[in-house]
Amino acid sequence: MSATSLRPEAWIARRDEASVAADVAASSGPLAGLRLAVKNNVDVAGFPTTAGCPSYATAPATIDAQAVARLRASGATVVGVTNLDQFATGLVGQRSPYGGVRDARRESHVSGGSSSGSAVVVALGEADIAIGTDTAGSGRVPAAFQGLVGIKPTLGVVSTVGVVPACRSWDAVTIMARDLDTAAVAMGAMAGGPGTRAWPADLPLAAPAAARVAVPAELPGMAPGWAGAFEAAAERLRADGCVVEPIPFEAFLTAATLLYDGALVAERHGAVGEFVDAHRDDPGLDPTVGGIVARAGTLSASAMVRDLARLEELRLASMELLDGYDALLVPTAPGHPSVAEVAADPVGVNSWVGTFTNFCNLFDLCAVAVPSGVVGDAQFGVTVVARTFHDAVALDLARRVHVPADPVAAPGAAGPLPAPESPWPVLAGARSERLLVVGAHLRGQPLVAELESRGARWAGPASTAPAYALAALDTTPPKPGLTRVGAGGAAVAGELWELSAGALGSFLADLPAPMNLGRVELADGTWVVGFGCHAEAAGAGQDITAYGGWLAWLGR
Amino acid sequence: MSATSLRPEAWIARRDEASVAADVAASSGPLAGLRLAVKNNVDVAGFPTTAGCPSYATAPATIDAQAVARLRASGATVVGVTNLDQFATGLVGQRSPYGGVRDARRESHVSGGSSSGSAVVVALGEADIAIGTDTAGSGRVPAAFQGLVGIKPTLGVVSTVGVVPACRSWDAVTIMARDLDTAAVAMGAMAGGPGTRAWPADLPLAAPAAARVAVPAELPGMAPGWAGAFEAAAERLRADGCVVEPIPFEAFLTAATLLYDGALVAERHGAVGEFVDAHRDDPGLDPTVGGIVARAGTLSASAMVRDLARLEELRLASMELLDGYDALLVPTAPGHPSVAEVAADPVGVNSWVGTFTNFCNLFDLCAVAVPSGVVGDAQFGVTVVARTFHDAVALDLARRVHVPADPVAAPGAAGPLPAPESPWPVLAGARSERLLVVGAHLRGQPLVAELESRGARWAGPASTAPAYALAALDTTPPKPGLTRVGAGGAAVAGELWELSAGALGSFLADLPAPMNLGRVELADGTWVVGFGCHAEAAGAGQDITAYGGWLAWLGR
Repeated sequence: MSATSLRPEAWIARRDEASVAADVAASSGPLAGLRLAVKNNVDVAGFPTTAGCPSYATAPATIDAQAVARLRASGATVVGVTNLDQFATGLVGQRSPYGGVRDARRESHVSGGSSSGSAVVVALGEADIAIGTDTAGSGRVPAAFQGLVGIKPTLGVVSTVGVVPACRSWDAVTIMARDLDTAAVAMGAMAGGPGTRAWPADLPLAAPAAARVAVPAELPGMAPGWAGAFEAAAERLRADGCVVEPIPFEAFLTAATLLYDGALVAERHGAVGEFVDAHRDDPGLDPTVGGIVARAGTLSASAMVRDLARLEELRLASMELLDGYDALLVPTAPGHPSVAEVAADPVGVNSWVGTFTNFCNLFDLCAVAVPSGVVGDAQFGVTVVARTFHDAVALDLARRVHVPADPVAAPGAAGPLPAPESPWPVLAGARSERLLVVGAHLRGQPLVAELESRGARWAGPASTAPAYALAALDTTPPKPGLTRVGAGGAAVAGELWELSAGALGSFLADLPAPMNLGRVELADGTWVVGFGCHAEAAGAGQDITAYGGWLAWLGR
Repeated sequence: MSATSLRPEAWIARRDEASVAADVAASSGPLAGLRLAVKNNVDVAGFPTTAGCPSYATAPATIDAQAVARLRASGATVVGVTNLDQFATGLVGQRSPYGGVRDARRESHVSGGSSSGSAVVVALGEADIAIGTDTAGSGRVPAAFQGLVGIKPTLGVVSTVGVVPACRSWDAVTIMARDLDTAAVAMGAMAGGPGTRAWPADLPLAAPAAARVAVPAELPGMAPGWAGAFEAAAERLRADGCVVEPIPFEAFLTAATLLYDGALVAERHGAVGEFVDAHRDDPGLDPTVGGIVARAGTLSASAMVRDLARLEELRLASMELLDGYDALLVPTAPGHPSVAEVAADPVGVNSWVGTFTNFCNLFDLCAVAVPSGVVGDAQFGVTVVARTFHDAVALDLARRVHVPADPVAAPGAAGPLPAPESPWPVLAGARSERLLVVGAHLRGQPLVAELESRGARWAGPASTAPAYALAALDTTPPKPGLTRVGAGGAAVAGELWELSAGALGSFLADLPAPMNLGRVELADGTWVVGFGCHAEAAGAGQDITAYGGWLAWLGR
């Protein structure tokens, strides 16, 4: 027996309520109790993977897609499979024989797509988290329209095994949730595993406190009031200590047009063209999608090669514009169209909706879309876009600009999850190290930029085991020297930073005498990398152990 | 006035001897005195960039390609531009209206291509180094046939600005030289600069002493005697301490066939198809090349997308086969065809020649081709293939398998260059760190694998400034503790390792108490990262400073 839904068109198929409840009750792991909806272009054992076209798959999938399997292994319970713009081709949520998906709050408006059903069932509280896919914005636009957080990771860090490709080169599997921490923990559980892209050794784990954020110098086509809402978001980042500056945006916009207007759309024919060509008279084939895919089959490989070369030029030009910035802030969409507006101009309105999302995957960037207030009755959202693998930077800044949307539904029993101890790339298997600092690298102290500029993340206060002595050294700037003295020593106050091995290595390589790094024992008995100094220097310094820490000494 | 040449067809245009001599005399920098030949698909100011087709460029280039400019800035002197398989399409050196290029040693045989002229003029001593390009093996095959070293770097680490594309996605700019050090120093000067791919933070700088090297389980199509020569090369690596093991090779060979027999060849039409289509009656258009490029223009983008997906599957399967190996050793070519053999079957023989080179760039791997003895009158060569950015690993193993060819010509006045202090990626701007070890991480000591497994390169013996004490610590395995004591201290013997920041950071993160890392002063007054230990542990250890170092203490 399946539950009713306020937007029944959002579901393609749904599990029996009783069996879901039993699975939820029996679940364990970091996602225990969370109900998961899966876009129906992603395999879920037992459900046909229709990709929004009933005849595309009539037999149920026999095994889960890797992304689904990983979420289940972490405790999530699949509740059903959701509607989508057919073959994930669209940003509006209207291109489906299962019905156009309506906005969760305003039935006159579109859900956004192509992950339309996934977004709407999460907004309605019928699921806690949902899998989407995103090639041109399909995981971000519906998140924005539905007041959700949407994480669009770096390409390849989530397996696409078991996912119907849209454009194989630029497809990403996404997570949507009502709050940021739940989304981040789910993404950490879903990413990684066989065949996924390895994280780099200098993976950043946070943005600097005074991050530099670029915004488009021009915002073409914004609906009335939406530019003002975007300016308010930029202002929030400024108020939080960021530098926000405009950059020229033509190269980004030009790349966006290449995806559909040029030969790159051939990827869609390479993905599902054989099926579409053989089913042009199938009533289940959406006419808009069928037309796009069929046209994509007429393009020459030579034209595609030239458009890929053009794309690479645009990417290099755009990355040059981003030089010196930690991330780019954009409106997720320029406006929220009604069902009638989309019906009147299905392709034109769709293109407009993707103005600020299309370039992202083409440039191999990652993104986090978050709610950012309202414009009238519409949810307004912004997206933080960051470089390849800078997913934790995007997440950090998204957290700082985020304004949680007014919920449509009460939170689920299992959510929202508490903030995880590490950013999601670390949850997904990226290696990070912990570094104990006790002096000039404490927050607010003069050398903290040496950590922040290397993508280190502040991980909170900590204290050594009661086995250390602290000396005030004769250095510029002034620094303390921590020495292990064993019994008779004291606990010394400090802070932990989490950072990549590459960041730790380059930090060490630049560390001047008499400082050194080695194992330091924390109050809880664990050992982390921490500061020490030459015995010679410590011996020459003033013993300040009795103060219990450097800040206490400075404030004496 | 230009010099004569034993193979005049190798040159397309050559500078006046007197002006070259004047430039050589005035040159300075790491490549001072070296005479540089440039494949004529790479811009050299003052020469038309014909790409082997006279009508393709009639006006001289106005500025150097970035690769040429960087070599010139390091002191190399351009002597002329060289013949090639037209549009770099071929591996034989016979597809050019400027004449089929003959082997430097045997005029009945082909030079190899497409960097035919570049290889032959270096073999003949008419240049010291040459720029080639390599998509399917064009920088490796002619190097092998001419008894040269050919470095085919990771894609994108040398700028392709100013280079006529062959297949834009898989084109690399290469260096050829008669010896390995000259090639490496030249590659270090040429790589890097604007728009090039950034080196990763965990860049390996060497192969382990006991490297694990894969070889193909089958060697299809080897000419008589060539399989035996390959086995001898593998045996040389074994004798040098490597583990050499066969792996299945079908996936590599299948990818090779995709490049020409599938839709990927469309890249060639994307590159020069517009010109070729407009010049099918041009007598300067090579009929074989014209046919290949024209056919490439008839392919559909959808087929290309599918072949790219197939390529990615093959790449993942192949990389899985390479798991646990540092590199792959292959014969550079399966045999060396005569001019007559190529004339009889221009496409078939060309494909055969590329059996062991074609897959490399498609899989984003790097390679170093080196001479490896002779089979009868033919030069035999092998190629070490390594992962993306593992150029220093390939170079290290190539050095260990290399058998210098008997030269055709006496060495140039300025070469061969001495071995550089660092591998070429470091010369090209990749950051590396130096680490002083004084105990269990010395070569031959029990923990050396902790450095070798992280791609660290042994950089020779070193000694501290006379300001240190050494204690034998109570650790397992036994380790010494180095302590700076200032005046009254002694010089302590150690060794330097060169490693990436990522390697240094993960090494530090895994370092157990009581060891630490910080600045240590060397005998020459420079400071490097080096070992120290907790004062508490050093105080409890036996003072062994008088032995001058750990090995002397162990051998007491």
